[in-house]
Amino acid sequence: MEKLYYSYEDFRTDTRKLLKKLPENEFDTIIGVARGGLTLAHMLSEALNIRNVQSISTQLYDDTKKRECITITDTCSLEKSKNVLLVDDIADSGETLKALYNHFTLTYPHLHCKTATLFYKSSSIYEPDYWVKEAAAWIEFFWEADFTPALS
Amino acid sequence: MEKLYYSYEDFRTDTRKLLKKLPENEFDTIIGVARGGLTLAHMLSEALNIRNVQSISTQLYDDTKKRECITITDTCSLEKSKNVLLVDDIADSGETLKALYNHFTLTYPHLHCKTATLFYKSSSIYEPDYWVKEAAAWIEFFWEADFTPALS
Repeated sequence: MEKLYYSYEDFRTDTRKLLKKLPENEFDTIIGVARGGLTLAHMLSEALNIRNVQSISTQLYDDTKKRECITITDTCSLEKSKNVLLVDDIADSGETLKALYNHFTLTYPHLHCKTATLFYKSSSIYEPDYWVKEAAAWIEFFWEADFTPALS
Repeated sequence: MEKLYYSYEDFRTDTRKLLKKLPENEFDTIIGVARGGLTLAHMLSEALNIRNVQSISTQLYDDTKKRECITITDTCSLEKSKNVLLVDDIADSGETLKALYNHFTLTYPHLHCKTATLFYKSSSIYEPDYWVKEAAAWIEFFWEADFTPALS
């Protein structure tokens, strides 16, 4: 599959587009999905002036060789939160975001949870509430490519 | 005080320098101090191939008008961790990093904890184990400046 380098400049442009799609003053908490969603979560929190930024992580494992399973490590502290924006870089298969969205809905019934990504694949089983670009190629994000030893 | 814009290009250069200072294969966990340390934590975790990335947050408040106090909201899950790298953008007054380092030492006595920042001020009460640049001016990081409405 074609590999597309996604630079910081691309990211800046798209994050600004994403910010224009987000409702103003709606969210009090941003949760970045580690690792891919962390930088976007940081930028959105600065732009929206949301100080409550947390992270959550998932692990994919092949349980039965029939389908992938997802383990969620949730150490979030959301007692004071009401409106959460869950942020990841891409809705690829969509498994992770769907599992996280369901997890939030079940675990924190007092929360309103929306999801945002930069990229969305039309084959994803979950469509984020807010996304910017449809992904046709394999995306190599600048945070994966710019700091590898080969480039230093 | 002079205000210095710190671009992504500067950040990339300095993060690569920081990576060269870090010991190889030492850390199993990276903790980013929200919000300023989140992007650096993300980049370091990708470069060092450390999947366990978490965040921690602090709040400064003026208790008695005599001195600042720091509240730490620690929701980290560190049962499986041994060697933690605690990451922030700058050791400015140093109060936050010093409080966090002490917190980790007391709360998780089984952990080895090291600290890393991009910037260090010579007036800081705490010197990180690893840092890249001495800060003389007020730093305006790209994550604070590049996504504000005025620039969009």
